[in-house]
Formats: sequence, C-alpha cells, structure tokens
Amino acid sequence: MINETTIKARYSETDQMGIIYHANYFSWFEIGRTEFLRSLGMEYKELENKDVLLPVIDVGCKYKVAAKYDDEIIIKTKLDNLKGVKIKFFYEIVRKKDDKLLAEGYTQHAFVDKDLKPVNFRKNFKEAWDRLKEVNEN
Amino acid sequence: MINETTIKARYSETDQMGIIYHANYFSWFEIGRTEFLRSLGMEYKELENKDVLLPVIDVGCKYKVAAKYDDEIIIKTKLDNLKGVKIKFFYEIVRKKDDKLLAEGYTQHAFVDKDLKPVNFRKNFKEAWDRLKEVNEN
Amino acid sequence: MINETTIKARYSETDQMGIIYHANYFSWFEIGRTEFLRSLGMEYKELENKDVLLPVIDVGCKYKVAAKYDDEIIIKTKLDNLKGVKIKFFYEIVRKKDDKLLAEGYTQHAFVDKDLKPVNFRKNFKEAWDRLKEVNEN
Amino acid sequence: MINETTIKARYSETDQMGIIYHANYFSWFEIGRTEFLRSLGMEYKELENKDVLLPVIDVGCKYKVAAKYDDEIIIKTKLDNLKGVKIKFFYEIVRKKDDKLLAEGYTQHAFVDKDLKPVNFRKNFKEAWDRLKEVNEN
Repeated sequence: MINETTIKARYSETDQMGIIYHANYFSWFEIGRTEFLRSLGMEYKELENKDVLLPVIDVGCKYKVAAKYDDEIIIKTKLDNLKGVKIKFFYEIVRKKDDKLLAEGYTQHAFVDKDLKPVNFRKNFKEAWDRLKEVNEN
Repeated sequence: MINETTIKARYSETDQMGIIYHANYFSWFEIGRTEFLRSLGMEYKELENKDVLLPVIDVGCKYKVAAKYDDEIIIKTKLDNLKGVKIKFFYEIVRKKDDKLLAEGYTQHAFVDKDLKPVNFRKNFKEAWDRLKEVNEN
Repeated sequence: MINETTIKARYSETDQMGIIYHANYFSWFEIGRTEFLRSLGMEYKELENKDVLLPVIDVGCKYKVAAKYDDEIIIKTKLDNLKGVKIKFFYEIVRKKDDKLLAEGYTQHAFVDKDLKPVNFRKNFKEAWDRLKEVNEN
Repeated sequence: MINETTIKARYSETDQMGIIYHANYFSWFEIGRTEFLRSLGMEYKELENKDVLLPVIDVGCKYKVAAKYDDEIIIKTKLDNLKGVKIKFFYEIVRKKDDKLLAEGYTQHAFVDKDLKPVNFRKNFKEAWDRLKEVNEN
C-alpha cells in the first residue's frame, strides 16, 4: 500500500538558494506517515495519547531535483521493515505537474513510551500491529 | 536591565528573497528571553519543571533593515509590564558589525500550568517574582 | 472578500508545550496571502518573477486558544489598507471542527524590487492594483 | 581537521515529544560546515557571491540520545570524500555537559552555479580546492 498526500511548498520553506531548504523534506515525510497511518485507521495523535511515541532513530534522503516555492508536491509513503520495536517508512517526493521524482528517503522509528523507554508494540497493540503487518512491503 | 545575547543568522533561516524569513525573529526573541531569565538566575526549563509555562498571547514586530545569512546579531531584551498573570518582553535586533537596528518587537506571555490553566506567579513564586519586579522597567 | 484556505497543523510545528509554536502562525499567514492573491489571479511567484517582492515590515498576532498537532485549520485572509507602496493583510486562524477562533493577526508589506528598493506598484502594475483595490476592505 | 562549534538548543526547535525535532539536526550540520569552511578562511557567503552554491544531494543521520531544550551542543564537523564536483561532510552532535554522542550524520553537496548547473570547483577555484584537499580525511 502506498499513501499519497498532496501539499504545496511554502515560502517559509525556501532558502536563499531559491529552493526548498533540504531539512524541510523531513517534515514532509512526517506528513506522509501521519496520513499513511490515518489511512489504516490509526491516528498518530491517538497513539501518543496511548503513550506510544515514534521518535526517529535513523533517516536518509537523496535529492534529485529541487522543489520550489508553490510547487504542488505529492508525498508517497510506504511501510517496510516492520519489527517488534522498530518501524521504517519509505518516501518519494514527486512534483505533481510533471510527475518528476524530486527526492526519496526513509525514516526509521522506535516504539517508545513518554519516558522514551522501548514499548513492545507487537504485543501491547496487537490489532494495530496486525493492520501494519498487512500493508508491510517485506 | 537589558540582556544582550549574540547569535549568527543561519542559512536555514533565510528565504528566497535572500533575507532572514520574518517569522524567525520570534525564535530569536525566544532566545533573548531565555538568556534574560538566566541572567536573573531563572532557568526557563526549571520553571517548566515546576509546572509554570509561558505561552505567548500577543506579539508584534517591526522590520526596518533585513538581516542576512551569517550576520552577527545582538538580541537586546528587557522586561516591561509585569503583572500577576502576565509578563511582557521588549526586544531589539541589532546587527553587530555596524550597530544597526534591524527590528524591534515584543512578546506578551501568560503564566499557566501544564494544562494551560492560569497560575498566580506573584503568589506561588514570590522569590522569582521579586527578582523580576526589580528589573521591570515600569 | 475573504479567502479561506485549510491546512493541517504539522508535528514539526509543535513545541514541547504540546502546542503549535507561536512563530509558525506567521508561515500560516503567508499561506493565506498566497492563496488570497491566487484567488485574484495573481500568483505571488509571478510577482517575484516580475521583480516585485513583498517583504514584511510590520506584523502582529494575538493568540487566544492554542492550535494543536493535526488540527484542521482554516486561514481566513482579507486585505486592508492598500497604499501605493504598502499592503496590509488581516488573518483569522480558525479551528475547523468547532469553528473556534484560535488567533488573529496582520502583516504589512512593502512593494520592493530584488534590491529591496521601493516599487510604485499602483503605477507599474495598474491592472493588478485595480484588482486589489476592488477587494480592499477600506 | 575537525571543527567544533557550540550552540544552544532552542525552544523553537523542540516538538511535543519534549525533544529537539529530528529535522533540526540538519540545520545544526549546516552551522557546522559554515564554521568548518570559515576556519579555512572560506566564507560560504563569499562562495555564493562568486556564484558557487553547495546544494545538498544526499544526507543521513542516526539519532542515539535525544537533544533537549537548552542543551549546550557541540557540532563536530570534518570533511571527507572531496571530489571534483562533490563534497561530503561528516558530523557528530555531542552534548557538552557529559560529552555524550547524541547523533551522527553526513551531508553530500554538489558544486553548482546560481542556475544549479555543475561547477568544476577544482579547476575554477584552485586555491580554495587545495586548502580543502589538505584537510580532507581520505
């Protein structure tokens, strides 16, 4: 399953090179995984209310073509490498007007509680886990 | 009392106009009041640990000359209008190399607890209040 | 004329108080005026291509109720105080689910060229000016 | 050669997990390489004035321990993998008070001109190139 969410690149996200500042792609990835989870009936804010946080432990991104202010951007998100205490998302950033791939990246997350201690998501949230497992690519 | 703190304008803070994006001055103001409070022996993070938060309720800023990437910036912070449930800071943003005033603004804050309910700071934190009162401009 | 644009508050926009960091409302205002101008057939990026920039010279915002992560937010934008070299926008930030007013603010802008020198917009861009004048509130 | 630059984690950089939002480490890396280049007598803003930009083409970061508001942070930057059209920096993010390694990452950059076309830095900026070559780790 791939979730597609569309946003518009903001002026506040540009830098003096005239392109979107590279770090902002990671906040776009974050939008992608929020919507990915929502599409499975899991609201990330509800997870946090149940004391499950998903801090980022590993990220990467390759930039191919620069996104610019006001570009319509499709964030494509999929899931991979679901483990008992970790979850990994892959993303493609695509320019809507010509379907050009601008960047691709990943983020890996730990399942932890509010004190940042590991949570066994598979065991404690079996139903949610099963839904994730179903759409896991590998 | 005026606190002076020096920072360097970051590339990530620029926009495609080639200047510092205006909203970032408010994070500079936030640095100014953190250091203002520290200079009085009050760590803002300690206030939060004691369940006193200072959310912003009113802000303003006038921009005169644009700050640019890598400019050394002096943030001048002073206190005014201290009330039992509110506190107001004034700021000047000055370019170090020529002492040019780039912007001036203010932020007003409520004293609240973690549930965002008002806290009577004057009563509950008498010692801290007295220190603030001493350096209050009016 | 009031333009209404809907966005979702991002995780990256929160702070450790658990609310949207106050400075981010100014990037929401910027989205509002981009869409306001677009609704009049004026793309802000096209203005920049024609060497008209709109740097911010004065801003203010009053915060009433905190926006939170994943809130659907309506940005209401209108125009006021159009002058030959300046333009002022007013904004309301409204929480969609209960139509609650969260914040209101304004931004005032100068018309300048890429060297940040004043541009007489009224004279040099008569057609655009007339369209703005038509929807100006005062 | 390793450049060490110290900053303080800002409130604006936190998120509602109570830690520094992960994308902000990339703006810290950017501070690190600005200061790395400055220590070699190369101001990044001067490079841009000479029409050499260094857009990011590949990044990665591993997060070990979360940075928190007001932490003093040492950014350690070194150079590696200098090629004719590319340059790669490595970074360590260290908490000053206990010398704890919080994160480590890299950024790779292309040498391009203002139109984002490749520049042969080695050939066109021989003196600067030689200085970089001297401190290149491999």
